[in-house]
Amino acid sequence: MLRLVIPKGSLENQTLALFEAADIRLVRGSERDYHGTVDDPRIDRFSLLRPQEIPRYVEEGFFDIGLTGMDWVEETGAKVEVIAELPYTKGYVGATVKIVLAVSENAGISSAAEIKAESRISTEYPNLTRGLFAELNIPVKIFLSYGATEAKVPEIVDAIVDVTEAGSTLRRNGMRIIHTILESPTLLIANEACLDDPEKRQAIEEIKILLMGAIDARGKVLVKLNVRQSDLAAVLGVLPSLKAPTVSKLAEESFYAVETVVAKADINVLIPTLKGKGAGDILELPITKIVD
Amino acid sequence: MLRLVIPKGSLENQTLALFEAADIRLVRGSERDYHGTVDDPRIDRFSLLRPQEIPRYVEEGFFDIGLTGMDWVEETGAKVEVIAELPYTKGYVGATVKIVLAVSENAGISSAAEIKAESRISTEYPNLTRGLFAELNIPVKIFLSYGATEAKVPEIVDAIVDVTEAGSTLRRNGMRIIHTILESPTLLIANEACLDDPEKRQAIEEIKILLMGAIDARGKVLVKLNVRQSDLAAVLGVLPSLKAPTVSKLAEESFYAVETVVAKADINVLIPTLKGKGAGDILELPITKIVD
Amino acid sequence: MLRLVIPKGSLENQTLALFEAADIRLVRGSERDYHGTVDDPRIDRFSLLRPQEIPRYVEEGFFDIGLTGMDWVEETGAKVEVIAELPYTKGYVGATVKIVLAVSENAGISSAAEIKAESRISTEYPNLTRGLFAELNIPVKIFLSYGATEAKVPEIVDAIVDVTEAGSTLRRNGMRIIHTILESPTLLIANEACLDDPEKRQAIEEIKILLMGAIDARGKVLVKLNVRQSDLAAVLGVLPSLKAPTVSKLAEESFYAVETVVAKADINVLIPTLKGKGAGDILELPITKIVD
Amino acid sequence: MLRLVIPKGSLENQTLALFEAADIRLVRGSERDYHGTVDDPRIDRFSLLRPQEIPRYVEEGFFDIGLTGMDWVEETGAKVEVIAELPYTKGYVGATVKIVLAVSENAGISSAAEIKAESRISTEYPNLTRGLFAELNIPVKIFLSYGATEAKVPEIVDAIVDVTEAGSTLRRNGMRIIHTILESPTLLIANEACLDDPEKRQAIEEIKILLMGAIDARGKVLVKLNVRQSDLAAVLGVLPSLKAPTVSKLAEESFYAVETVVAKADINVLIPTLKGKGAGDILELPITKIVD
Amino acid sequence: MLRLVIPKGSLENQTLALFEAADIRLVRGSERDYHGTVDDPRIDRFSLLRPQEIPRYVEEGFFDIGLTGMDWVEETGAKVEVIAELPYTKGYVGATVKIVLAVSENAGISSAAEIKAESRISTEYPNLTRGLFAELNIPVKIFLSYGATEAKVPEIVDAIVDVTEAGSTLRRNGMRIIHTILESPTLLIANEACLDDPEKRQAIEEIKILLMGAIDARGKVLVKLNVRQSDLAAVLGVLPSLKAPTVSKLAEESFYAVETVVAKADINVLIPTLKGKGAGDILELPITKIVD
Amino acid sequence: MLRLVIPKGSLENQTLALFEAADIRLVRGSERDYHGTVDDPRIDRFSLLRPQEIPRYVEEGFFDIGLTGMDWVEETGAKVEVIAELPYTKGYVGATVKIVLAVSENAGISSAAEIKAESRISTEYPNLTRGLFAELNIPVKIFLSYGATEAKVPEIVDAIVDVTEAGSTLRRNGMRIIHTILESPTLLIANEACLDDPEKRQAIEEIKILLMGAIDARGKVLVKLNVRQSDLAAVLGVLPSLKAPTVSKLAEESFYAVETVVAKADINVLIPTLKGKGAGDILELPITKIVD
Repeated sequence: MLRLVIPKGSLENQTLALFEAADIRLVRGSERDYHGTVDDPRIDRFSLLRPQEIPRYVEEGFFDIGLTGMDWVEETGAKVEVIAELPYTKGYVGATVKIVLAVSENAGISSAAEIKAESRISTEYPNLTRGLFAELNIPVKIFLSYGATEAKVPEIVDAIVDVTEAGSTLRRNGMRIIHTILESPTLLIANEACLDDPEKRQAIEEIKILLMGAIDARGKVLVKLNVRQSDLAAVLGVLPSLKAPTVSKLAEESFYAVETVVAKADINVLIPTLKGKGAGDILELPITKIVD
Repeated sequence: MLRLVIPKGSLENQTLALFEAADIRLVRGSERDYHGTVDDPRIDRFSLLRPQEIPRYVEEGFFDIGLTGMDWVEETGAKVEVIAELPYTKGYVGATVKIVLAVSENAGISSAAEIKAESRISTEYPNLTRGLFAELNIPVKIFLSYGATEAKVPEIVDAIVDVTEAGSTLRRNGMRIIHTILESPTLLIANEACLDDPEKRQAIEEIKILLMGAIDARGKVLVKLNVRQSDLAAVLGVLPSLKAPTVSKLAEESFYAVETVVAKADINVLIPTLKGKGAGDILELPITKIVD
Repeated sequence: MLRLVIPKGSLENQTLALFEAADIRLVRGSERDYHGTVDDPRIDRFSLLRPQEIPRYVEEGFFDIGLTGMDWVEETGAKVEVIAELPYTKGYVGATVKIVLAVSENAGISSAAEIKAESRISTEYPNLTRGLFAELNIPVKIFLSYGATEAKVPEIVDAIVDVTEAGSTLRRNGMRIIHTILESPTLLIANEACLDDPEKRQAIEEIKILLMGAIDARGKVLVKLNVRQSDLAAVLGVLPSLKAPTVSKLAEESFYAVETVVAKADINVLIPTLKGKGAGDILELPITKIVD
Repeated sequence: MLRLVIPKGSLENQTLALFEAADIRLVRGSERDYHGTVDDPRIDRFSLLRPQEIPRYVEEGFFDIGLTGMDWVEETGAKVEVIAELPYTKGYVGATVKIVLAVSENAGISSAAEIKAESRISTEYPNLTRGLFAELNIPVKIFLSYGATEAKVPEIVDAIVDVTEAGSTLRRNGMRIIHTILESPTLLIANEACLDDPEKRQAIEEIKILLMGAIDARGKVLVKLNVRQSDLAAVLGVLPSLKAPTVSKLAEESFYAVETVVAKADINVLIPTLKGKGAGDILELPITKIVD
Repeated sequence: MLRLVIPKGSLENQTLALFEAADIRLVRGSERDYHGTVDDPRIDRFSLLRPQEIPRYVEEGFFDIGLTGMDWVEETGAKVEVIAELPYTKGYVGATVKIVLAVSENAGISSAAEIKAESRISTEYPNLTRGLFAELNIPVKIFLSYGATEAKVPEIVDAIVDVTEAGSTLRRNGMRIIHTILESPTLLIANEACLDDPEKRQAIEEIKILLMGAIDARGKVLVKLNVRQSDLAAVLGVLPSLKAPTVSKLAEESFYAVETVVAKADINVLIPTLKGKGAGDILELPITKIVD
Repeated sequence: MLRLVIPKGSLENQTLALFEAADIRLVRGSERDYHGTVDDPRIDRFSLLRPQEIPRYVEEGFFDIGLTGMDWVEETGAKVEVIAELPYTKGYVGATVKIVLAVSENAGISSAAEIKAESRISTEYPNLTRGLFAELNIPVKIFLSYGATEAKVPEIVDAIVDVTEAGSTLRRNGMRIIHTILESPTLLIANEACLDDPEKRQAIEEIKILLMGAIDARGKVLVKLNVRQSDLAAVLGVLPSLKAPTVSKLAEESFYAVETVVAKADINVLIPTLKGKGAGDILELPITKIVD
């Protein structure tokens, strides 16, 4: 039975929603509890802890598997196995955050190499920052930030290394991104030793299937339509090819029902096209999980 | 590429939900932003502005298309093309608001014609109000209201012209509706000149299909059931006739699967009836979009 | 036409959601109203009242049908007909609450029979409590509680009889449950006389079908998959047997589409298994109602 | 050392504010705790419990002193000693609530005696209600209410006995008050036996002085002014006579400083008058406590 | 007896606080009521209405006196008597708002005269705006704004005329103020005819004294100190001269007590100075009202 | 002109209230701004930053003075000058927090020396923790905590070093405090170099006086009373001796007015005593600042 740790804070709500969509039910006495049990034959119990602490806890084996950002795996340098990339952020499924170097938009600086020696850098990622400037061979003074990093330029420091999604918080604070250190998706990580146990390895694989199935379904819908035999080929021709549509004959002579999964991002263009090719009774239905 | 404007305020949440259901993704930096981009090949950017201002902005061509209430199109007298009526209010999809004349329930007045000359009328719609009383040939004094119009009778004014959905706010304030000036659905409007451009006209038509498809789906569900061949005709006989159901033969000898779209408003009566006619395994599934 | 009463307070949100899922639309002027109309040919109007008061109101015929907890039917001793058990609580569909006897975990008491004579008991259920101790033949002093019963041990009373779902509030207050008096599901109850009217009896039966259909759907999903003919038997073999799956031939030679309803609780184990047996294109869809 | 109980719910905030103003500091671990200690040599600990339960708890000696409404002392018939009336409600210091009999304003009933036999009465005060109708010699059916009593007329019951402050909730629900059963101030009550202990009696007396001093100060302010000797008599003449003002000679020849405590309710009229009589440098200062 | 109207919206909370500090008690049934009574012999009742509507209502005599911003008196051109300027805004007592002309900080425009002909101006103040540009002799197109005016530049309009306090909202939206049309304090206004009634005029004068006394007290404190006779002159020498301090001899030989009212803005510098001059036992006390 | 930094987070509200009470007005554009100006001739501008970062920023001279907890000065080892201890926490003025070592109450450990070698310790204070165990000569594994440290015992770590005020959060999580590492008041700190500038040193001294004056006033009140000459000595005899009361003769023959500052903590006992000794007209008034 596995012990699971998931991230408290900005990723918390999306992570809890993801497990619910994956039908792995996490049970807590109340919303203030940091630990709970799991209604699943493969997972025994879970904890909800800060993402910064999770890589080392999984490395040390306090937990078998965990979810956290790739940024904290890199920053801590913890030795863990990456099982899967789960592309979601606090805001969207299908997105990742980035760790970037940013300066005041009035600083007249447009690349990392232009940062002056002895510049002051505020960051929650001192190791990633040290790594960047070691590579650039620019000596800088790094100040550990405990929050609101973007508010420290230019009053207190010259640049920051910070996490951002679309960059709008940085822009609103008058900053310009001049370098991306890391694209950082959420990761499903595992303790290395625990993967040597075949039963645990199998369990982790199954959990990955369920989580990926739930993530995958978030950006997709099921499209159903009916079409006359004579138009069938034309309609099938415009359907996205990522997956063979399911075609079945209707009781009504020479009519076919077609079902296929389509990315939400394509739907707004696809539906008018389908209609133009002769499809009728077009329905769009929500999906909870997709496993190919 | 079209520029879109949508209404801030009471219609805001339902409008944003409608575009999401239509798979036309509006992207803002934060919830405090009034402008954003659109993840759609036909629309470039959107703004979120007060519904009162939208008709004139579309008329002047600051935007190509917009959503706003019919009340503000009429009140401003702006020359715009009405593309579609979208029946939703802040509370419900499938409803419209009304612009009404109301008086105190103790005023002893039951029709617009009984309003006394020189009465004081408070309203956010001075032009509609002027039009009504010009027609009735009753001279009145109109006071522009900036909100809470219903709280001004009888202390300050004698009657009001105000917007209402089910009338319950008016009733709770001791008022009686004595005349309906306008049934006011939400409208999709377009700048007149922009419709001369065939590409823009086509784009607007496609957006209309997606929005109508999403609205239409709100009040409907997909019903699936299995039925023995001998009961098929009876079951089909009670299904609402607005749309031919999809019938397919099952692998199991002499069984059929039937799927059809039904209005939610009919479901509570239909399901017991279907069961009585021999339908089994009845399932109701939510739909996101319907395009016939 | 029936008059309906539903419980205000902890069960309120789930009850309103249940009626919406059952497509029986309850209409109120505002969220502060205690009475409203019902958009249904069988129900005329509804009221929203405290669950403690509902059994007697239904018994007296002020309402024809009502929803309330079994605890209050038992406590009040009201003579009403139980139409259906609806297993939901404020927190979960598929759960029931319990009325329990609890003491301080430091009291050294582990069964009801060990309660000392003249002990002080705080409870919102004086009749159930009296009944329990009469049976045990232990004289106790009962104090009517108006809330926060769990906070009164050990400072003020020696034991409590209180409602609990998972018991975590009691545990957090340092209490141990030593006896369960009653498992208490939510009940659909009816006035006895009203069942003599065949039309009303029929209407109540139909409402029961819709409510049960909505409850039943909450814990289930629709699973769709495609499978090669050669794997069909193996795939069908692992599907839960509670219901025959719907199998149809696809247009593509030797492929079958399979649809079946599965309990959410089984899905996390089932999907990896199905995949192993050769199922492809597995989709999970949400269901709103199930009527067999 | 005394044990104190104070009312949870509508009176809670004002009661906590009153003890703070009286400089008797109640200490809880968190706002969710029902019990705490008291930073006072006379009071050991306190509990926060529903006002309905307090009279019996004080009667039984679980607590030495308590605050609760007179309504619950009367309703429960508990034998306790009333130490002081503390005129405050959830809304105002200087006010009391009333227990009233109310009917629909359309019922055509204007006194308690007109209530028809067998009328249905909903109330949280069954004993007070029984007492009233026994006196009137009218047999009625009493239904115990668990909240929102005012929403039950006329749909469910014919009349209610309920608590009200200014009557505006009743009026907004279309009801008319036809009889006042009880003016109900908040009371400081004590266990009878505990008053036999002279030390406890003395402690209770001192606590009464502090609470009354804090209540008394709420509606009063300190007015300071300077006045020429020749105007002194005229200024003193218009000061409210409830208390002799403090007059002192200033260093400046023939000027006096006057200080006096004035009810806030009089201040709006008094200040223009004082100014007219020659007072200058008029200052109004807040007071925390008054003990004569 | 006067009828009073006060502004709903941004000025509401400070206005209600001002009347409370002035000991003129406004009584409403609930916070949702727009009308109420006044516990004062000079004022009968009050209404809470939008500040834009207040000038015309006072002009027409629906109310005798009212509070509103000078901006709306100017914009509406209503003929009313200004009784007093009350310097407070939604944020601070002692401040006023301004009506300004603002453009994008990237527009390269730094004065009103540089605005180009045919520019588009969005504003809630069409009359003030028309007046400004008529004076400047620049023809512009004015669009009536219904809110969030600052969000319309540069996307929709070229400039705005808007209300601002410290200008920070405009700056955060990338705008530059290029002209101030009006400094706009809150005003106490009266109906002109009503001032002809000597009793009403006297009542209005008294209300002005109370409101001004409460406003005046907000920015001031009472400073008390003791000082040896030999240091008295030095201490008095540094006290602000706006008002003669109150000096009295103490019982202790050769010591004096000094009391004086000081602006809060001076206190941070004054106290260290007083201490340096020999003052001891310096106390600062809050004041509720000052009438000289 | 000084640059000031104050702590964001748990101390924020009390710190802002303290500066307001000290009449040093901090001005921000909005509550979301991290930087602002100061309405004071000695301080130019201020920033609001996390308390953990403040010691190093003051050490480096980015700011001249700052407020932060002693815990962070010790943890960071920053070289700064401590100007004053300001005894307040997020909850109370007059209190300090403590940095403590705590274990599970079931661990059977009651002193720091009993901690086993290789124990896992979670803490936000790795340096303080390292220091403690180096002194004890016990090798432990320290894990940096990013929050909710108290929730990690016993599931993840064996002990924690954490901040606590009254210890109730730790107790509610089943922990026992076994060692106090540091009593940690809030500190006013200054950059060492900046104190060499006499003007800045003087400014800092004055700011200290104002802050201490405001803190001091929080726990005290002004008591005023009148007393007959014959009772004067007795009344003065029971007044707390920390400060000589101000006594002045009243105009009324043989009466004296007495004013004195008393700690709130003593008031509940003092007032009944004063009354017993013959004092009358006792008033308690709030104070904003005390400077001796």
